[in-house]
Amino acid sequence: MNQAIDAILGHYSVRKFEDKSLTEEELSLLIKSAQAASTSSFVQAYSIIGITDKEVRKQISLVAGNQPYTVQTGQLFIFVADLARHHAILEEFQVDTEALETSEKWLVSVIDAALAAQNMAIAAESLGFGICYIGGIRNNVEQISKILDLPPYTMPLFGLTVGHPVVDKEKAKPRLPQSLVYHENTYQKTNPTILADYDEQIKMYYNERTAGKRIEGWSEQMARGLGQKNRLDLKAFLEKQHLNQK
Amino acid sequence: MNQAIDAILGHYSVRKFEDKSLTEEELSLLIKSAQAASTSSFVQAYSIIGITDKEVRKQISLVAGNQPYTVQTGQLFIFVADLARHHAILEEFQVDTEALETSEKWLVSVIDAALAAQNMAIAAESLGFGICYIGGIRNNVEQISKILDLPPYTMPLFGLTVGHPVVDKEKAKPRLPQSLVYHENTYQKTNPTILADYDEQIKMYYNERTAGKRIEGWSEQMARGLGQKNRLDLKAFLEKQHLNQK
Repeated sequence: MNQAIDAILGHYSVRKFEDKSLTEEELSLLIKSAQAASTSSFVQAYSIIGITDKEVRKQISLVAGNQPYTVQTGQLFIFVADLARHHAILEEFQVDTEALETSEKWLVSVIDAALAAQNMAIAAESLGFGICYIGGIRNNVEQISKILDLPPYTMPLFGLTVGHPVVDKEKAKPRLPQSLVYHENTYQKTNPTILADYDEQIKMYYNERTAGKRIEGWSEQMARGLGQKNRLDLKAFLEKQHLNQK
Repeated sequence: MNQAIDAILGHYSVRKFEDKSLTEEELSLLIKSAQAASTSSFVQAYSIIGITDKEVRKQISLVAGNQPYTVQTGQLFIFVADLARHHAILEEFQVDTEALETSEKWLVSVIDAALAAQNMAIAAESLGFGICYIGGIRNNVEQISKILDLPPYTMPLFGLTVGHPVVDKEKAKPRLPQSLVYHENTYQKTNPTILADYDEQIKMYYNERTAGKRIEGWSEQMARGLGQKNRLDLKAFLEKQHLNQK
């Protein structure tokens, strides 16, 4: 097709990297790619923190589930929803800052950050790097914020580890059938037969990948994982940061 | 560099499209690209609603600021944060569904949806289509939800219009200097001199683009726009949808 589509469709998460940093040129190109993403009303409401210090990576890794691929990697990026810059500007222009505390502005900063991150991910993969998102940093947002010295009006959203992959190419995990995710004109309830077929497909995928050790459909996996109330400190943290309040 | 980087760095928002639908193949490839994005714990917590019906597009357009490019376009997609599917599964497995109401799960669904959307955007641009995100659908999420018949545990996040562009290639809008967005190891306060230089750069950009009609720095633009408390119904809407509550 083309190299962009190839990079996009060829995606799989890499969890083992060479101990080799990105060059300044690579780093700069990845940040430039992130920044080229669309941004709501040009607000650019995010920051990217690159963790070069291995001790800091280790501290973050301890929060995020202690995975080696957050430490031994080309670069560990933390994507931060960031309205602190705007807060300072509004204060300077003597404009009321209360609007920054709304759910709307919170949503804008999260979406802005995610669009930027995915641009970086695609750029990285197109250049032959492997990537993995690290949602585990939300296990303790307070601790991550301390490590990164984050001010009010910011929140660390997720990490993105980018590096030279050492694993063999994995098989991309089969996604939900298009007809379940894509609806025409109005929302359609999930078709149980199509979902059951998908569950079978996922069972076969895990069976093959784990040599029979794990055989679980998508629905079972969701039922097992999504009932757990975790990261319940997030709401209070957002309140402390003056985000998502109104 | 490569076609992925070219598509990413070449991005600009297109606001005029030919009156020509996407083919089924193009549509399917775009959805496939969206779905290939990373997803937190494999939850795939989003839906994409493609609006083929021009009457429905017009209704959405009236909410979103009445822009012609939401009606005359290849396809109008609405990206929806979607935990409704998971809610049904949890009920079927007799698992407590309260966890779906947390800020954490809300965040997961927003990020999942945004990563998928950006994959679609890059794929589309790499194929020569133009794109524009439509945040304006959040002017009235209640109304959009009625139009799309959205169930509880969902929220319409943004639109993405994709089509054959009829405008000439615009100049990409200069982003914040890398040194302001990218921090090393810890968060750094915005350097006022670098920000002032950027403000000058943006003034020149608008001056050139509007033939002197608009001369405004980025900081001024932020101060003018971000003080406004808008979309204040979002919080109550999320509550009604059982999202972002705990």
